[in-house]
Amino acid sequence: MKTISSRHNPLVRRFREAVRDHADEIVIEGPKAVADAIASGWKPLALLTRAGSELPIDPPSATPVAAIPTDVFRTLTETKTSQGVLGLFERPAATAAKILARREAVTVALDGIQDPGNVGTIVRLAAAFDAAGVLLLPGCADAYGPKAIRSSVGAVLNVPVAQVSVDELLASGLPLVAADASGECSDPPTREAILVFGSEGTGVSREILRVARRLAIPTSARVESLNVAAAAAILLARSYSLRA
Amino acid sequence: MKTISSRHNPLVRRFREAVRDHADEIVIEGPKAVADAIASGWKPLALLTRAGSELPIDPPSATPVAAIPTDVFRTLTETKTSQGVLGLFERPAATAAKILARREAVTVALDGIQDPGNVGTIVRLAAAFDAAGVLLLPGCADAYGPKAIRSSVGAVLNVPVAQVSVDELLASGLPLVAADASGECSDPPTREAILVFGSEGTGVSREILRVARRLAIPTSARVESLNVAAAAAILLARSYSLRA
Repeated sequence: MKTISSRHNPLVRRFREAVRDHADEIVIEGPKAVADAIASGWKPLALLTRAGSELPIDPPSATPVAAIPTDVFRTLTETKTSQGVLGLFERPAATAAKILARREAVTVALDGIQDPGNVGTIVRLAAAFDAAGVLLLPGCADAYGPKAIRSSVGAVLNVPVAQVSVDELLASGLPLVAADASGECSDPPTREAILVFGSEGTGVSREILRVARRLAIPTSARVESLNVAAAAAILLARSYSLRA
Repeated sequence: MKTISSRHNPLVRRFREAVRDHADEIVIEGPKAVADAIASGWKPLALLTRAGSELPIDPPSATPVAAIPTDVFRTLTETKTSQGVLGLFERPAATAAKILARREAVTVALDGIQDPGNVGTIVRLAAAFDAAGVLLLPGCADAYGPKAIRSSVGAVLNVPVAQVSVDELLASGLPLVAADASGECSDPPTREAILVFGSEGTGVSREILRVARRLAIPTSARVESLNVAAAAAILLARSYSLRA
């Protein structure tokens, strides 16, 4: 395996740019997540290991692989999650139209979810409960930043994710169902619908609430609200179990 | 309001010790969480504000209140969550026996949940879905550390939490129901039962699994497991909605 010692090496820079901007390329951390991505058919553009770490996967033969010293590795990631392995992949390019075309499942739309941990967790839930995909309305964190990818535990490559505007969402023709504490307590849809989740503080935008059916999750009076990822877990799990 | 400028002041030290050890006293961060705790009947032992921050609550008249400079405040907490306000409270002292005595609800038991964020999130879910309380088996993070308290969003004072041994749990006479991917997919109990959640990596201990009914959450094949807080959200919400 090639060894790179400079943090200014072009390949190291390319990883750093993908961590920072994730515009065209993204970084997946950890041997398991990288191996899962490869097993799902994604081809790594390059792999980096921390010097001394074993590469616990057989990369495709054409993939550039290099070892870098710990101090250079640390400029790219928190080493705990990465376990000494980083993979560079092309940023997936799903479209809202393609996600919305899969009507036998529900689509998830996130509205103003700024915390990348919540975005990544919900992407993982969308995979777990077979949603058509995740649409990101304005004000959401990018699903391909390092924290969102970590929170998705690799699911980010198994679920189509795309940006969407409120207008596109309204024009989709699909019924909108918004998680909202003022709504009725009933079962979520199982297909041909968009489940919209807003941030815990501000909720779903008024423009969407105006036309959406509002769905509440019954809770005790001991809390005022649920974390958005908990709300998504509950409604997506229920939708999936009713569909199955 | 009194002003303290030294980080070695006895009151500042007492807060620091509560943040670090949370043995007899605990620290609640943020004006809203502190106000909620007071509204729930908890008496603050003392309050600290960051110099320049308003105290947006009326503390009980006997409560010592002091302002401290930003650099001293930073030695106690991440300022973002605290919004310049810290409250010192007595550590709640629930017992497993008392929690287990409330049989019209389910009790939550956590087994080896090391991440305080998950412990705090599940404490909050126990409040949301009116569980009798949360029992911490060996290997769990303390529910009264700063990160767990932050993740519970103040619910830690509304839900009884107690340590418990596996033997005590087995001796309780209540049916044990373990969240486990190898189990059957059916509805969770609504009362007179203990719902046990293990860590995502290692699951529920063998000693408990041997006697527990195993309950799985139906998921797609696209993920191998669910985050423990997501699993708890789904089963506790379902249990609560069946009870209501």
